[in-house]
Amino acid sequence: MLKPLGDRIVLRVKKEEEKSVGGIVLTTSAKEKPSTAEVIAVGEGRHTHHGKVIEPGVKVGDIVVFEKFAGTEIKDGSEEFLIVREDDILAIVE
Amino acid sequence: MLKPLGDRIVLRVKKEEEKSVGGIVLTTSAKEKPSTAEVIAVGEGRHTHHGKVIEPGVKVGDIVVFEKFAGTEIKDGSEEFLIVREDDILAIVE
Amino acid sequence: MLKPLGDRIVLRVKKEEEKSVGGIVLTTSAKEKPSTAEVIAVGEGRHTHHGKVIEPGVKVGDIVVFEKFAGTEIKDGSEEFLIVREDDILAIVE
Amino acid sequence: MLKPLGDRIVLRVKKEEEKSVGGIVLTTSAKEKPSTAEVIAVGEGRHTHHGKVIEPGVKVGDIVVFEKFAGTEIKDGSEEFLIVREDDILAIVE
Amino acid sequence: MLKPLGDRIVLRVKKEEEKSVGGIVLTTSAKEKPSTAEVIAVGEGRHTHHGKVIEPGVKVGDIVVFEKFAGTEIKDGSEEFLIVREDDILAIVE
Amino acid sequence: MLKPLGDRIVLRVKKEEEKSVGGIVLTTSAKEKPSTAEVIAVGEGRHTHHGKVIEPGVKVGDIVVFEKFAGTEIKDGSEEFLIVREDDILAIVE
Amino acid sequence: MLKPLGDRIVLRVKKEEEKSVGGIVLTTSAKEKPSTAEVIAVGEGRHTHHGKVIEPGVKVGDIVVFEKFAGTEIKDGSEEFLIVREDDILAIVE
Repeated sequence: MLKPLGDRIVLRVKKEEEKSVGGIVLTTSAKEKPSTAEVIAVGEGRHTHHGKVIEPGVKVGDIVVFEKFAGTEIKDGSEEFLIVREDDILAIVE
Repeated sequence: MLKPLGDRIVLRVKKEEEKSVGGIVLTTSAKEKPSTAEVIAVGEGRHTHHGKVIEPGVKVGDIVVFEKFAGTEIKDGSEEFLIVREDDILAIVE
Repeated sequence: MLKPLGDRIVLRVKKEEEKSVGGIVLTTSAKEKPSTAEVIAVGEGRHTHHGKVIEPGVKVGDIVVFEKFAGTEIKDGSEEFLIVREDDILAIVE
Repeated sequence: MLKPLGDRIVLRVKKEEEKSVGGIVLTTSAKEKPSTAEVIAVGEGRHTHHGKVIEPGVKVGDIVVFEKFAGTEIKDGSEEFLIVREDDILAIVE
Repeated sequence: MLKPLGDRIVLRVKKEEEKSVGGIVLTTSAKEKPSTAEVIAVGEGRHTHHGKVIEPGVKVGDIVVFEKFAGTEIKDGSEEFLIVREDDILAIVE
Repeated sequence: MLKPLGDRIVLRVKKEEEKSVGGIVLTTSAKEKPSTAEVIAVGEGRHTHHGKVIEPGVKVGDIVVFEKFAGTEIKDGSEEFLIVREDDILAIVE
Repeated sequence: MLKPLGDRIVLRVKKEEEKSVGGIVLTTSAKEKPSTAEVIAVGEGRHTHHGKVIEPGVKVGDIVVFEKFAGTEIKDGSEEFLIVREDDILAIVE
């Protein structure tokens, strides 16, 4: 299990055929990467230089759209995850 | 439905023929992208590093002009949206 | 009517022949853009990350000089405006 | 023994065959560097310009994944370490 | 008359022959621009993001040296001025 | 004697043969510069823009490892020193 | 006489033959500029955006070493000075 640090969020990227959930897809031409995903784990939030912690605006289970080329891909056994900054997440698909 | 995060705003971009509303158009030559739109959804606002939240200066339904190449395009079924930062919005067309 | 957001200011750019008002012209060679204008509308001001609002130092009707290549041009029907940041404005012509 | 300064963290990089622990591997093609490691030592934390110290979110013994090309490699006798900034660490592998 | 905004300062640039006043000249080779001038008008000062105003350290009439390529040139009728940021001014010639 | 200013630290760089002390060496290929050194003098610390001084985390006599290409070399008679920022220092070798 | 503004410092650069004072010389190959000098005048200090003034850590008469290519050269009659930021000064030679 991955426990992200600070303002980082672990996402499981939705493959092409999963696009029907909420029907959301970034206008992704073939060459662009899929950019909708499920939130798997959230960090404690962003530490400001005043020592405050700004809690994340997303929670585990949310379906989100995010900046196309953001984050670092991680393989955990057969599963593939993407670790992004909260600021890379554009919106929650409700 | 898209719920934008933080200082992000969801816009529905006005196609060329819709330009009569308020008659506003960025001096857009053929090659430039249309830059007026309707506000569809607003985030809670910008978190400052003092933990304050600066609420957005636009609301759902406003017609706005914005920086030409700003934001990320999102397709939701047949509809196309643009998710921008509030700071990319230049003015409200009243 | 354009209502600018935050620290943005709407200007009506002065064409070449209007230069006599205050006689101010940036040393503009033919190729450079005219850079004096009239203030048409002002935003509420700049939000600092302490939640303060710093009101604009210009008001509607002021004639100003501004950084030559600043802002975004907007056409409203037959009229052409420029939306700049307050920080792009150099001085008021009194 | 290395005592890292401020927000720096000393890692012992996991070689390829050690990947089974938690089975975590960055999607590392041959050319990319391994990016999972064990925390060997932690600095006191990040000093903010308000004089606050934000303690590190990792502790000695944690297994972590980190940004692929981050940090400076250090040889201590036969052992090889990597000194990174805490912000280069993506997540703890639990 | 030009009333500069914020931390801006209006200077009248000293032509080559005026260099005897205080005898100050930047080691200006032919190709470099003259960089001593008289202060004609000062803005109210720099607004910090705490809402404080840091008053300018120069006053009308001061002779100053400034960074060679700083500022924007402005023609007011036959006179030529330069609008710089206070931070572009190096020193007052006493 | 060199008295460094602010957050600066004076180091005496360890030549190749001195590497045995603590046996620490950056994985330095021939072309890279040695990066372990002894602390000779420390500044008073970093001034934050709140007027606080963050004292240095190293003291005279510490053996440290630092970023390979950091700092400015200084010759004092026959001795050679390197003046770095405290932030360029990675860790203390204990 | 030059009165530097803010965090600026006026230096009189030491020519090559003056190098014996404190014997300090930056490892200056022929092509590099001399980088030791005497402090001639100091500004009031750096204004932080909290309205505090951080007084300079050097005083008139100090001999200092500074970053090689920093500052702007100024000729005052036959004398040549260099105006640098305090942050460009590395250390005081005691």
